[in-house]
Amino acid sequence: MMLDYPALAAVAAVMREGSFERAAERLGVTPSAISQRVKALEERLGTILVVRGQPCTATSLGRRLCAHVDQVQLLEADLASSLYGAETPVTLKVAVNSDSMASWFPEAAAEFARNSGCMLEFILEDEAHTADRLRSGEVVAAVSADPSAVQGCRTIELGEIDYLACSSPAFIARHFPDGVTAQALNQAPCLRFDRRDGLQARWARERHGIDLDPPTHWVPSTLGFLHFALEGMAWGMQPVVLARGPIERGQLAELSPSTSIRVTLYWTVARLQASALKTLTDAVRRVARSRLIQPD
Amino acid sequence: MMLDYPALAAVAAVMREGSFERAAERLGVTPSAISQRVKALEERLGTILVVRGQPCTATSLGRRLCAHVDQVQLLEADLASSLYGAETPVTLKVAVNSDSMASWFPEAAAEFARNSGCMLEFILEDEAHTADRLRSGEVVAAVSADPSAVQGCRTIELGEIDYLACSSPAFIARHFPDGVTAQALNQAPCLRFDRRDGLQARWARERHGIDLDPPTHWVPSTLGFLHFALEGMAWGMQPVVLARGPIERGQLAELSPSTSIRVTLYWTVARLQASALKTLTDAVRRVARSRLIQPD
Repeated sequence: MMLDYPALAAVAAVMREGSFERAAERLGVTPSAISQRVKALEERLGTILVVRGQPCTATSLGRRLCAHVDQVQLLEADLASSLYGAETPVTLKVAVNSDSMASWFPEAAAEFARNSGCMLEFILEDEAHTADRLRSGEVVAAVSADPSAVQGCRTIELGEIDYLACSSPAFIARHFPDGVTAQALNQAPCLRFDRRDGLQARWARERHGIDLDPPTHWVPSTLGFLHFALEGMAWGMQPVVLARGPIERGQLAELSPSTSIRVTLYWTVARLQASALKTLTDAVRRVARSRLIQPD
Repeated sequence: MMLDYPALAAVAAVMREGSFERAAERLGVTPSAISQRVKALEERLGTILVVRGQPCTATSLGRRLCAHVDQVQLLEADLASSLYGAETPVTLKVAVNSDSMASWFPEAAAEFARNSGCMLEFILEDEAHTADRLRSGEVVAAVSADPSAVQGCRTIELGEIDYLACSSPAFIARHFPDGVTAQALNQAPCLRFDRRDGLQARWARERHGIDLDPPTHWVPSTLGFLHFALEGMAWGMQPVVLARGPIERGQLAELSPSTSIRVTLYWTVARLQASALKTLTDAVRRVARSRLIQPD
């Protein structure tokens, strides 16, 4: 059986753009052409693929079909240059954790884009869905702190990032006049990126033997997280690469000196024989080797 | 009727932490105590409130009850200081767009936290859900570029942000040797934050009369978006406050000089008589007045 690929491309465009109108603009056809293609495919399959709404979203079968189209396009990319010369560039969907996106990953992405001509679509890694998205093929690779094996993928260790417990010097003077004590740690406002962010609790436990349960600001933005510390609102674990400059300028300080903790990052990538994926993995490993801490 | 508030607090903690175990740690009770409270409330109401999973999520009734608890705690905060003196600080949930979070908003948040003693929980604003979240009370306020009225809320204009079409000088020399033409714009790789990000298309249309349909990198991270331009992977609309430094250092340049576009930001806030909300709105307006462009 061959699937109806023009119809699938219409479904994928509606998913990406969120509406039939924008998908139509994107593909250079009328919205009613898009609508007919999607509907015809839904009728043939006897099931809904697109949940109409603001924005439109995919049903789980819709998502699986879009993932399949992405993978077919990735495999086609290896043919395309020999068949037609220059082609519409293929887009790889990748999940990346926020701190990597804000530091070393763009260099790897730039090297990959130069070497492959491919485009990249990022989603920020999230606790619940990254493994599911890899398993279903919705993303073809992910950078995360999670070493778990994912079916159909291989996982490579990339290196480590150091995090420092930081806030503004004024915040530290006010909340930690006697240094880091259990009482001070549980009264001073603390930052958390999101609910999977256990770095602050890990630092308190590993470095000071304290169970952490402080008043918490929840700030799911790498730059916001840094600015909240700079503003002296709270303390939090900052990646060294972002904290170093402000520490040198006296805008940030460590709660207790030289008590960094390390997080290991992993690259989980689909086992798919596509040269674009190999080029991406090569670029990620090369940049990770020079920008992340390598164990021994 | 009075709801079972200890049980509701358990439901809210499970939502926030994502699991019964972490909620139990947080509230200083055993996981089985949390589980019993949630189950008892679900049996009394005859419906499920928490979808058990990794992580646990709320049903729509569960979300409405949690939003109600948040609002009750906000109103209680006005009583608490007179009733008990110092209290566990209340947490306000606010949606903020990513560029504001990375620039002017932390200053407003810091002023608010100093003046109120409240904690803040942020979610990044998203196209589909911000208005719903305001309507249901899940968040009490939002910064967005969307002026639409939301039932039960008032909307205040905060000011404007300028965006510049930027990339690295090398990217511009390679892709725009003859300046900004329709052909060059539709071949040069372009950045988009997410599917609601129409800034690049708006700039091409308003400043050059060109319909934009280029190869696109999708980068939903403010710092990632900036780094991709610095790496010369693509061009995109950067907020002036982030682009100014790199432009002065020669790391970024404008595609065509002095063709910024402006985006108006709004503050949409629940009509709720709670002094914490008034303090937050005052801080947001004051900082917006000094950090955003004010129309005459």
